Amino acid sequence: MAGEINNRKKAKFVYAFGACTDGDASMREILGGKGANLAEMALIGLPVPPGFTLSTEVCGYFYANSGNYPRGLEVAVSKAISEVEKQQNKGFGDPVNPLLFSVRSGARESMPGMMDTILNLGLNDSTVQGLAERTQDARFAWDCYRRFIQMYGEVVMGVHSRDDGEPDPFQQQLAGLMSEQKIDKDDQLSHSDLQELVRRYKRVIKQRCKKTFPQDVHEQLWGAIAAVLNSWKNERAILYRQRYGIPVEWGTAVNVQAMVFGNLGQTSGTGVAFTRDPATGEKTFYGEYLLNAQGEDVVAGIRTPKAISLLAEEMPRSFAELKKIRSRLERHFRDMQDFEFTIEDGRLYMLQTRNGKRTGLAAVRIAVEMNRERLMDRKTALLKIPAESIDSLLVPVFDKKAQQDAHRIGHGLAAGPGAASGRIVFSAFEAEREARLGNKVILVREETSPDDLRGMLLAQGILTARGGVSSHAALVARQLGKVCVCGASELAIDYVARVLTIGGVMLKEGEYLSIDGSTGEIYAGMIETADSEVQRVLKGRLAPEKSATFGLYQTVMDMADKVRRMKVRTNADTPGMAKTAIAFGAEGIGLCRTEHMFFDGNRIDLMRQMILAADVEERRAALKKLLPFQRRDFQGLFRAMEGRPVTIRLLDPPLHEFLPHDDARRAELAQSLNVSTEYIIERIKALHEENPMLGCRGCRLGILHPEITEMQVRAIFEAAVALQKSKRPVIVKPEIMVPLVGFDAELRDQVAIVRAVADEVLTKAGIEVPYQVGTMIEVPRAAITADEIAETAEFFSFGTNDLTQTTLGLSRDDMGSFFDVYRDKEIYGHNPFASIDEAGVGRLMRTAIRGGRDKRSNLKLGICGEHAGDASSIAFCEELGLDYVSCSPPRVPVARLAAAQAVLRGN
Amino acid sequence: MAGEINNRKKAKFVYAFGACTDGDASMREILGGKGANLAEMALIGLPVPPGFTLSTEVCGYFYANSGNYPRGLEVAVSKAISEVEKQQNKGFGDPVNPLLFSVRSGARESMPGMMDTILNLGLNDSTVQGLAERTQDARFAWDCYRRFIQMYGEVVMGVHSRDDGEPDPFQQQLAGLMSEQKIDKDDQLSHSDLQELVRRYKRVIKQRCKKTFPQDVHEQLWGAIAAVLNSWKNERAILYRQRYGIPVEWGTAVNVQAMVFGNLGQTSGTGVAFTRDPATGEKTFYGEYLLNAQGEDVVAGIRTPKAISLLAEEMPRSFAELKKIRSRLERHFRDMQDFEFTIEDGRLYMLQTRNGKRTGLAAVRIAVEMNRERLMDRKTALLKIPAESIDSLLVPVFDKKAQQDAHRIGHGLAAGPGAASGRIVFSAFEAEREARLGNKVILVREETSPDDLRGMLLAQGILTARGGVSSHAALVARQLGKVCVCGASELAIDYVARVLTIGGVMLKEGEYLSIDGSTGEIYAGMIETADSEVQRVLKGRLAPEKSATFGLYQTVMDMADKVRRMKVRTNADTPGMAKTAIAFGAEGIGLCRTEHMFFDGNRIDLMRQMILAADVEERRAALKKLLPFQRRDFQGLFRAMEGRPVTIRLLDPPLHEFLPHDDARRAELAQSLNVSTEYIIERIKALHEENPMLGCRGCRLGILHPEITEMQVRAIFEAAVALQKSKRPVIVKPEIMVPLVGFDAELRDQVAIVRAVADEVLTKAGIEVPYQVGTMIEVPRAAITADEIAETAEFFSFGTNDLTQTTLGLSRDDMGSFFDVYRDKEIYGHNPFASIDEAGVGRLMRTAIRGGRDKRSNLKLGICGEHAGDASSIAFCEELGLDYVSCSPPRVPVARLAAAQAVLRGN
Repeated sequence: MAGEINNRKKAKFVYAFGACTDGDASMREILGGKGANLAEMALIGLPVPPGFTLSTEVCGYFYANSGNYPRGLEVAVSKAISEVEKQQNKGFGDPVNPLLFSVRSGARESMPGMMDTILNLGLNDSTVQGLAERTQDARFAWDCYRRFIQMYGEVVMGVHSRDDGEPDPFQQQLAGLMSEQKIDKDDQLSHSDLQELVRRYKRVIKQRCKKTFPQDVHEQLWGAIAAVLNSWKNERAILYRQRYGIPVEWGTAVNVQAMVFGNLGQTSGTGVAFTRDPATGEKTFYGEYLLNAQGEDVVAGIRTPKAISLLAEEMPRSFAELKKIRSRLERHFRDMQDFEFTIEDGRLYMLQTRNGKRTGLAAVRIAVEMNRERLMDRKTALLKIPAESIDSLLVPVFDKKAQQDAHRIGHGLAAGPGAASGRIVFSAFEAEREARLGNKVILVREETSPDDLRGMLLAQGILTARGGVSSHAALVARQLGKVCVCGASELAIDYVARVLTIGGVMLKEGEYLSIDGSTGEIYAGMIETADSEVQRVLKGRLAPEKSATFGLYQTVMDMADKVRRMKVRTNADTPGMAKTAIAFGAEGIGLCRTEHMFFDGNRIDLMRQMILAADVEERRAALKKLLPFQRRDFQGLFRAMEGRPVTIRLLDPPLHEFLPHDDARRAELAQSLNVSTEYIIERIKALHEENPMLGCRGCRLGILHPEITEMQVRAIFEAAVALQKSKRPVIVKPEIMVPLVGFDAELRDQVAIVRAVADEVLTKAGIEVPYQVGTMIEVPRAAITADEIAETAEFFSFGTNDLTQTTLGLSRDDMGSFFDVYRDKEIYGHNPFASIDEAGVGRLMRTAIRGGRDKRSNLKLGICGEHAGDASSIAFCEELGLDYVSCSPPRVPVARLAAAQAVLRGN
Repeated sequence: MAGEINNRKKAKFVYAFGACTDGDASMREILGGKGANLAEMALIGLPVPPGFTLSTEVCGYFYANSGNYPRGLEVAVSKAISEVEKQQNKGFGDPVNPLLFSVRSGARESMPGMMDTILNLGLNDSTVQGLAERTQDARFAWDCYRRFIQMYGEVVMGVHSRDDGEPDPFQQQLAGLMSEQKIDKDDQLSHSDLQELVRRYKRVIKQRCKKTFPQDVHEQLWGAIAAVLNSWKNERAILYRQRYGIPVEWGTAVNVQAMVFGNLGQTSGTGVAFTRDPATGEKTFYGEYLLNAQGEDVVAGIRTPKAISLLAEEMPRSFAELKKIRSRLERHFRDMQDFEFTIEDGRLYMLQTRNGKRTGLAAVRIAVEMNRERLMDRKTALLKIPAESIDSLLVPVFDKKAQQDAHRIGHGLAAGPGAASGRIVFSAFEAEREARLGNKVILVREETSPDDLRGMLLAQGILTARGGVSSHAALVARQLGKVCVCGASELAIDYVARVLTIGGVMLKEGEYLSIDGSTGEIYAGMIETADSEVQRVLKGRLAPEKSATFGLYQTVMDMADKVRRMKVRTNADTPGMAKTAIAFGAEGIGLCRTEHMFFDGNRIDLMRQMILAADVEERRAALKKLLPFQRRDFQGLFRAMEGRPVTIRLLDPPLHEFLPHDDARRAELAQSLNVSTEYIIERIKALHEENPMLGCRGCRLGILHPEITEMQVRAIFEAAVALQKSKRPVIVKPEIMVPLVGFDAELRDQVAIVRAVADEVLTKAGIEVPYQVGTMIEVPRAAITADEIAETAEFFSFGTNDLTQTTLGLSRDDMGSFFDVYRDKEIYGHNPFASIDEAGVGRLMRTAIRGGRDKRSNLKLGICGEHAGDASSIAFCEELGLDYVSCSPPRVPVARLAAAQAVLRGN
């Protein structure tokens, strides 16, 4: 890419916005989201402070050339600065009338808080005087200056608190000075206090960096630009990209914009607003502001801001203007907007707009309602709902009764819907420790910062003491689908003693806490959770018309079902699971794992008898006793599925998985089988495998012990016969699936058994049961030789879990030891067990489909690995032309929506 | 294929030979080897009894259509019978002048003794009278008849001895009658005894089969044809095909030929001869015969026949004729022939000729000498030597001194060269039991039959009491490259007591025995083995001119080296292995497994310290101590390789492989590391993996612990520097290989370390060492994304062991539990770990090569899996265009020859 840029005659790296604007909203790739939208707002006449954007190509060049900049960039930046100076009638570095800049990152996709920002850039020992003069407010000017030095020191010059828990060195200076002056709020610091603070801050930098704080404003600017570019690869940004699948190649743009001040007294202020409620999606003007503050103060959650509606009283003119802008933005961008504004001495400025992050519920509601309002067409509306969002309409809420009895100890702002209970943790570190033990946790923080992201990912819920609904905690929680209550102002946390106090109750780290992110309520102890409204409707326990969310759910599902091409099946082994899945809209079973049936009740004993049999006769005897159980299971499943197709996988796991692992159980088993414990241990030893994943399992079992396959097939067809002959006959469409096939000969061997037993049972019963026999495609060789296998297989079902393990030579159970390092080094673009590895596993899937369909044009194709519930994998399946995806019951709604979106994106 | 045949207008299923011949030697595919060569001999005027061949297509049809025959076959057979009747002037089923047939199998490749044969077909209660009349020998006629009934009863009607050890029911009748008559040899049975025996045999059949022995000669013929076709899928045939890679689709032809009789008294006889000595390859007329006998008697080894040279005295005319035919055959077929003849009342008939099976030594000698004699051109000569044969010039012989001291207890015929010691076993069953315990065995049998094949495969050597050098034992042993002594007439075996006696010594099953298959000597006890002549020359311990076999070896290797395109490297980890490999002709190291270096001496302690390190600093400290060892190892290896390229694989196995497994060793380790045993156990537990094959190994180790890669690379380059600066400077060409790469990012991560460390070391030393960095292709994803990986890799080396495991989802360590069943069911065409699975793994290799070379046209390609020493896999590598194969040192000569043959076959 670097070479490419050099070869262009006139590469453009700097795009102005303001009176004269080079870019527009369509140029996200080059300008980043923030830069493109600043340009767009300027173009449509909204009040945007002028500035310019360094394109993402600069970032690419920067990384490809060890931190150097492309030729010509410096000149272009100088020109852009002059243009801003002209428009603002100020001079950058001018001691009399200084122009100040903010420098902010801005990637193609918003990555809130992940990268660095510098405000008030351009202040130095002489311009601070000019600012004081101009604003007639020396205190303000020096306050800006000390904030700038702190920010610059931290972000550009790398002054941080040390790992040993030493407090931030700048905060230390501030606290020291305040205690010397005997004051307890920083707005009580006088003009001269602030001057002293500036001196002390500069000394901190000198000591820590062995360099002085730069007085040259251009040096300041280039330092800030480099810092923003470098922050593209900081740890938080990497983690965020990992989670959201943002390619590292995109890079970030850098926005340099004239400063406006919300902290010039009570006629100034700053705020963040949403054109609709980002938590519920309701069409209300939603937001918050602070008078006499800079933008960071609202987002950082240091002061709890006021609701936007109060601005109508405090600044009626600005409020009216904002309301106009609100609807202008929605009409123009045709989506819910999240925007930042600053009022400088009564004059309104727009600093940013972007499509607002929202909860799943809000995403659904906004899409449905904007479609009704004709702001979005049907296709856009469907695509605007992240498929995962549907889940948030299905997530559990607190059990009503349990909630009534629970000890409510306080409340905060409802910032991420759903109900969560867990052990209290105060740090990401503790969250990780507890999570590793399998415990659920609630992360409790004064406020969260991007450093807490790892802990938030692991937590069931997040509770903060400070910060509003647009604070970092709220924003991230909504996006992660985490339950969140924020700004619980009564909450006091003692990080050192590891306790929290609220409503007169003290709770220690490790004790249970429950929060309701839909209401903001906080409870001591654990509360049982219960079904959501949609769940209750689906289970017939609530009338549909009594639930607004069910209406939304139904509308979206209907829209999706009209569009999607792929069927959605489910992976279910019991009638209960099958019924749940049908309520969610499943159209069949794509994977019934027969082995699960053998763990039930005393069948496991029969199963063990079968496994430990000394010869075929003994094995047959045990299988004969298992047959009625298995038949009854299939009957139940077939009845629950009411005529829908049911794919049954023959026994798959290695036999040793059925045997007891502890000595006591082994002795028990020996007694019940009337053999010696030594014999049991001997047999278990004989069944031990170095790599069970690649051992005697799947069809290898059925080839080694054909009598197992015979029993299972007999159970299937006897169940089908019984149901078709029953008083309430049910049509049965069995699809028998042979696992772990790598050679056509394996499949042929098993299919011969299936057909022989089926023929025998059906002939004897004198009825017909149309059935299919197919195979899993779950080892690379099956994909590679799919043309041969399709001679025998009537369907393929991609078992992408195992196919990923074998294709990558990667055991999911064992990757824990190195996965963190792999993630940090960005070696896997994403977790290949979460989303299909398209470049590797995906290419094998293509090979299999080409080979299979060449040989058998009506070959049915499905997927039953866990990827079948993942939206991006579903999109890939649509691209491949699969006939169905089969996921776990709760993922069925997500899959229906994702399948529809895949069609829409493909068109 | 069946459909194909039906669609042809005039399919030809029956090919005559004799006075009028339809086929020729080129038609092996349709006529099988025997049928094609009978036709060819008839064509060139040799005396062949007339007959006809049912083509292999009949076999294909037979299996595809549940044992039915193609339309028109019956008519064609009738016509062919008439033709033979005309030529022989006899009638099939004619009671006065009966024509008798033999019915024999005959596949494309000879499968000696694996399938069924019927002789004397056409005899019944009335034709037996005609035969008696015609031959003027009623005893002979009734002897033929009883033999026919027995053979037909066993082969066609399925009368067998039962599994409970009951003796053969026909043998039982024979024994009974002989005891009634008080005689002890079957040739003492009178005409009427034989008539009685016929009655009793027919009764056996009636009792066992509930059917009478068929009197209709056409029913007899079709029964025999079906039996021969069915024998294509008997257990022995399957095992044989498995071992020799003969596709089941080939099928067998059926040869129906007029009987001639070698058992018509002292002017008749039968024999088997080779145009050259099949054991040594020497150009002598070699063979054996029996007077007054049928062909089966010679091969079965029931009577020990006379050397062919004696025939010159007993039947000078026939001997002269045979000698002429011998050279005629060699000139015509241009290869050593193994032929069968029968002399009926002084008249010579040829019953079969085929290219003779031979020992490895003989194969080499015959090819070299026939090339010198201009009977073979260079290409043919090279292709005539099975690549494996070279091995037999390298196999160990008895240590001369040990042999002198050994207790020689007898001798037999030298039938399979080489020296072998092992425990005595008397059955295939015992052989399997001992082999499973890892013991070497000598299989000792009265004579061997095809049922012993499994035991022969497992034995180091085979010793028989009866049978000559063309007996089954000798034939099979030569082909398997097994040491064999046969026809040791003093040897007495008591199968029940499980002891053998020879030369007055009694040895029990399980005791040691040694045999020399090059001399025929038999020794009690174990004898140390020593290097062969070729080995001694290669090691400089024998002058080349003093060894004839070395001359042969050198000639073949020279011929091969002139032809082959691929380089042959070796897998070696020590200077010793490297030197051996160079003596064998290795041109570089294709795989140095660095982990082997860590097991040596007290390095394992340092390695364990490294693994158990609590943090990076501790690990670095341990690595620092390992560095000098590793550097010294590389120095030794580089020096041994004298400037040849050396591919070094970075650390590959899971770390837990280095840790002790038993409690005592763990306690010891804990003490030496000054930690608690619990800590050691804890760490080992933490390193435990469910599927270590797919766990933290290969490049994952180096990515997780970059300091390991750093140390290894530092050792490599410091060694290179030291050698280049040493008094006797050596050029070093290191090729650093990163294992288990699946993602280009993995390789990039490791290559960055390699280049950084190399740069540092070389810059400091101020010298240049040209080196390459590449990767193993051993997981499917690497093959699939080879285009990406080749951006970073300068070479690929196919690790086909692991690539097979992952592509097939098949753990080599765990396949034992089902592999026997898979082999019996012919699910794997061959063992995929012995020869490359071309349809699966091979296709991935093609993908990798296409992708890799597209991106980097000069990408170097090699293979270092065990397949690199397998001839058929080497042929595949040639087809793929690999640059080199890398095998274990002793396989280098085989690989050189196989690589040349691959070129010749490809042209």
